[in-house]
Amino acid sequence: MDKKIYGLLEEYMVSCMDDSAHDKEHVYRVLYNALDIARTEKNVDYDVLICACLLHDIGRKEQFENPALCHAMVGGEKAYDFLVEHGFGESYAEKVKCSIQTHRYRKSNPPRNIEAKILFDADKLDVSGAIGIARTLIYKGIVSEPLYSLLPDGMVSNGENDVSPSFFQEYKYKLENLYSNFYTERAAEVAKERQQIAVDFYNCLYQEANIAYQSGRIELDKIIQ
Amino acid sequence: MDKKIYGLLEEYMVSCMDDSAHDKEHVYRVLYNALDIARTEKNVDYDVLICACLLHDIGRKEQFENPALCHAMVGGEKAYDFLVEHGFGESYAEKVKCSIQTHRYRKSNPPRNIEAKILFDADKLDVSGAIGIARTLIYKGIVSEPLYSLLPDGMVSNGENDVSPSFFQEYKYKLENLYSNFYTERAAEVAKERQQIAVDFYNCLYQEANIAYQSGRIELDKIIQ
Repeated sequence: MDKKIYGLLEEYMVSCMDDSAHDKEHVYRVLYNALDIARTEKNVDYDVLICACLLHDIGRKEQFENPALCHAMVGGEKAYDFLVEHGFGESYAEKVKCSIQTHRYRKSNPPRNIEAKILFDADKLDVSGAIGIARTLIYKGIVSEPLYSLLPDGMVSNGENDVSPSFFQEYKYKLENLYSNFYTERAAEVAKERQQIAVDFYNCLYQEANIAYQSGRIELDKIIQ
Repeated sequence: MDKKIYGLLEEYMVSCMDDSAHDKEHVYRVLYNALDIARTEKNVDYDVLICACLLHDIGRKEQFENPALCHAMVGGEKAYDFLVEHGFGESYAEKVKCSIQTHRYRKSNPPRNIEAKILFDADKLDVSGAIGIARTLIYKGIVSEPLYSLLPDGMVSNGENDVSPSFFQEYKYKLENLYSNFYTERAAEVAKERQQIAVDFYNCLYQEANIAYQSGRIELDKIIQ
C-alpha cells in the first residue's frame, strides 16, 4: 500500500474515533493483530485488509448516538462512500465494505472472504485476555454500568443468568466464550495464550467482592438492632 | 447502631452516589471491609465507624464538577451538617467528619483515631487487587482517559515517568505502591492476598499491547511504501 493512501485512511479513521474503549489505539492493535494473522494465511489482499482494519469502527459514533443502528453496517457504508469519493474503484470499495460489515459478533452475517475473516479475528483478539477485560471495564464506565448485580438475597451475582447489564454479565455472556470462535488458527493460538489471565481476573474479582458481602453482612446484622 | 439510624444514613448516602467507580456498592464494600478490620482492633466506636464508612464519599459529585475541591473535605462538612440537622450530637458529628476528612490518600492529613484509620484502610482495600484494577479502569472510561500512552518511538509506555494520564500511569503512580501503606495489620494482610492478581494483570496487559505494537509496526513498514 502506498504511504499517502495509508495516511489518508488513517486520518479519516482518527477523525471518527472518540471513546476510550474504541479509540485509535484499538484500531492500531486490530491492524497489528491482522498483519500477524495474515502472515500465516494465503492469498491475502493487503490493500483490502489494511483499509478494512483502519476503517472497521468508523460507525461507532452513530451506533452510540442511536443504539438501533449497527456500527458495522454504518461503518461499511461510510467506508464505501469515502473510498469512492476519493477515487478508489467500486470493486475495491465493495470488498472493504463487506469485510467491515461482517466484523461484528453475529451468527447471521459471518465473514466470507479471507480479509473479512482476518479482520473479524483481529478485532475479537482485542476482546480476549487482559486487554479484553480492560476495554470492557472502560466501556462499562462510559455507559455507567456497574461491576456486578446483586441477587435477591443481597449477595453478589456471578453474572450467569443476569438480565441487568454489568461487567460480570458481559463476561459470562460474551468474553468467557469467545475463545472457541475464531476463523484462523493463528488467532485461536494467540487467544489461547491470553485466556488464563482473563479467567484468573474474573475469578479473583468475584471472590474479592463475594467474600466482602458474605462476611460483611453477617457482621452488620450483629451490630444493627 | 439502631436500624432506623442506619436506614437514614444509608438513604442519604444513596442519594449522593452517582458514578459507577464510586457507586453505592463501593460504599458497602468499604463498610464490609471496615467491619472485618474492626474485629481485630480494640476500642472501636461502631457508631462513628459505620456512619463514617456510609458517608465517606458523599462529596464525590462536588469534586467531579469542580476538581479544585477535595471530596474528603466536602464530604466531611456535608456529613457534619446532615448529622447536626438530624439531631445527632456535635461531638459525634465532629468525630465522623474528622474520619471522613482523613480518608484520602494524602501524606499531609493522616487519619488519627482508630475509626479514621479503619475507614482509610477499608477504602484503600477497594483499590487493591482485582477490584482496584476494575474500578480504576471503569473510572478511566468515565473521564475518557486511555489505557496507555505511546513513547516518542511509537511503542507502548509502561506508565513509569508518564505525564499524561492513563491506566498504566495510574497503576505505576498509585496502585502498585499502595500495598505497603496500611495502618492496620488485617488490611495489610487482605491486601497482600489480593496483590498478585493486580501484578499479573498489569504485566499481561502490558505484554499483550507491547507485542502487538512491536511485531505490527515491523510488518506494516514492510508493506507501506
